[in-house]
Amino acid sequence: MKTDLDALMQARGIDALWVTGSADHNPAMVYLTGVAHVTSADLIKVRGADPILFYNAMERDEAAKTGLPTRSLDDYPLLEALKQTGGDLLKAVAARYQQLLSDLGLASGRIAVYGKVDAGEALAVFSALQQAMPGLEFAGELGNTLLMQAMATKSPSEVEHIRHMGQITVDVVGQVADFLMSHRVRDGVLVTSGGDPLTIGDVKSRINLWLAERGAENPEGTIFAIGRDSAVPHSVGASSDPLRLGQTIIFDIYPCEAGGGYFYDFTRTWCLGYAPDEALALYEDVLNVYQQITGGLRSGTPCQDYQARACALFEARGHPTIKSSPGTQAGYVHGLGHGVGLNIHERPFFSLIPGQEDLLLPGAVVTVEPGLYYPERGLGMRLEDTYWVRPDGTSEVLAEYPLDLVLPVRST
Amino acid sequence: MKTDLDALMQARGIDALWVTGSADHNPAMVYLTGVAHVTSADLIKVRGADPILFYNAMERDEAAKTGLPTRSLDDYPLLEALKQTGGDLLKAVAARYQQLLSDLGLASGRIAVYGKVDAGEALAVFSALQQAMPGLEFAGELGNTLLMQAMATKSPSEVEHIRHMGQITVDVVGQVADFLMSHRVRDGVLVTSGGDPLTIGDVKSRINLWLAERGAENPEGTIFAIGRDSAVPHSVGASSDPLRLGQTIIFDIYPCEAGGGYFYDFTRTWCLGYAPDEALALYEDVLNVYQQITGGLRSGTPCQDYQARACALFEARGHPTIKSSPGTQAGYVHGLGHGVGLNIHERPFFSLIPGQEDLLLPGAVVTVEPGLYYPERGLGMRLEDTYWVRPDGTSEVLAEYPLDLVLPVRST
Repeated sequence: MKTDLDALMQARGIDALWVTGSADHNPAMVYLTGVAHVTSADLIKVRGADPILFYNAMERDEAAKTGLPTRSLDDYPLLEALKQTGGDLLKAVAARYQQLLSDLGLASGRIAVYGKVDAGEALAVFSALQQAMPGLEFAGELGNTLLMQAMATKSPSEVEHIRHMGQITVDVVGQVADFLMSHRVRDGVLVTSGGDPLTIGDVKSRINLWLAERGAENPEGTIFAIGRDSAVPHSVGASSDPLRLGQTIIFDIYPCEAGGGYFYDFTRTWCLGYAPDEALALYEDVLNVYQQITGGLRSGTPCQDYQARACALFEARGHPTIKSSPGTQAGYVHGLGHGVGLNIHERPFFSLIPGQEDLLLPGAVVTVEPGLYYPERGLGMRLEDTYWVRPDGTSEVLAEYPLDLVLPVRST
Repeated sequence: MKTDLDALMQARGIDALWVTGSADHNPAMVYLTGVAHVTSADLIKVRGADPILFYNAMERDEAAKTGLPTRSLDDYPLLEALKQTGGDLLKAVAARYQQLLSDLGLASGRIAVYGKVDAGEALAVFSALQQAMPGLEFAGELGNTLLMQAMATKSPSEVEHIRHMGQITVDVVGQVADFLMSHRVRDGVLVTSGGDPLTIGDVKSRINLWLAERGAENPEGTIFAIGRDSAVPHSVGASSDPLRLGQTIIFDIYPCEAGGGYFYDFTRTWCLGYAPDEALALYEDVLNVYQQITGGLRSGTPCQDYQARACALFEARGHPTIKSSPGTQAGYVHGLGHGVGLNIHERPFFSLIPGQEDLLLPGAVVTVEPGLYYPERGLGMRLEDTYWVRPDGTSEVLAEYPLDLVLPVRST
């Protein structure tokens, strides 16, 4: 949690955090500023002190809205610096930051760097700065970074943001179900009132519209994949595909608050009209694993235990898994879930990968998303909800929606 | 242009380009792949050869849709690498990339790095890789990077993407004008049929909706700022503000294609009902500069000449400018324009900053956006359109829309 930042910095020997980039669609920055129209900023938090937001003068009002102490980057004029470096931009930028860090009293110690920016620019700037200020160490982290560790448990107000996105998500999912069920069937596919086949593209454009109506964004798109495509976990579906009865449709939706705020993550698998026996059999297996895992979510348990249990349950039902058959593309082929917050995928991870041994902690917000995939048979099946591990260690789903497989359609 | 990449690499002594990250909302990647649901990928282009896209197996179908030669990152299994490094993620990731680069025959030379990812992760990975492969140089660039230079001129098909976004933009702007004009006035502010004041928040939610209806995204939000807020160039406007007659409204809209494709950039300044004399005087000054600059856009001219000319024109009309009064927040306070493409701000820049001496080249797509700002008087004024410099050196606006200041409202 954000309140843990100083303790985490202490534990990791980090003297300051430096987040760079925009205050929208930049999880590390939004975590500390909220969503703001501050397109090019630097936030520096010295251990034990409040973060300070450095902004460009044109964005002074937007910077002020964050409620943080702010300072103008115009106090370090780039034009002056460029004059002194004979027009060398990289040296000028480095000199400017050097002055800024000195003014903060940062001459020695370890600074952890964050923020979604161009990798090459980051490499150039921090290398130049490292050379200019050898007393400082500009530390990059991979994997379970300090910020990721803090973000892995949510404050009650963060949970309310995610719950709100959850309600928007299930409202839109319900609207999609109603929309599909309102269509007639001809030759085994849904058709519009004009008689044309309804396509996945038609459905997706409505999803974006209905999300926008509710003030949400959909920056990473939607998976709405039928038949063979449903059997490849990250296939988003072909826009021109018609909606054929009796095929599995995987509908995975993960919108966020406008400007790149908190996400929600949700999946249902639907069969229009009827479910063939082999789809129904997969559904029962996935539903069983979903229920056993979600019924047993408790804080203090290693996340890998849940993944191991999901694998064991699927294997007992005759399915290959990535545990029994590493690299398999049939059966249970992915992790059981992941944290959700300002990143659609964050800690904790329910995977068996070494280095990802997370404990399920109170405050975690995680997906549970068991699935089965058989590309050769054109079958995919996944059920996913987002759960909050409450302070008392028990868990609750953040948005309720029926788990039904079959969407009835009107008889022709 | 993309076809210049090999020549630019040769000229800059770069042996390979490496773009990392997602294939959505990541300009460097989208430039080479198109928008795709490939969330975690690496694209490597060796000079003289086609780029190769390395993807995660779950996203094989989406990777294939890019039409590029592809290879699976599963050929370099992370689990194996983690076993060999005793669970050290950073060493494992570096070892994996080392193998991948070796397989591409890259053992020596200079690799330029791009892609919007976390700065700390980039720093960690490329530092580790640099240590492991001392024969290679992983080069970060700042400012006019190789990719930025290529992107600064657009192919005809890129121009059509931008033109299409331009049409969507002006369609939505027209819809906003109609929406405002359909309201009644009470006590000098627009009111809804229920009698409540119409607010900026109401207008902005419709803008997002109408963009989504047309399949566009609005990842950076919209500036719709009235009165005092209109006088601060990047103030986005306060959601709760009512729409008062006779005040300047700056409406700056910059949506992009879904998934983080090409942007368009457009601004009008409106006064509802009537324009006070001082607003009208500013309007005439800005319109005059807009017309003189856009009427004279020709390829082969240094972009700084246009900015210098805009400053001279404004100064002749009695306004302070950043040229005559560096750091001023009143008068003409920003650059005249910038390139538009997969980044909302890219080369060429019409600014006077050393190191940004761009030439206006055929194929450039640029905004022209003169403006005047007087925070003390609560007045802001900006007009902006996006122009294409055609292969023959002349220019055209990519979407037509009237420049009128006053939006008539219904008498009460």
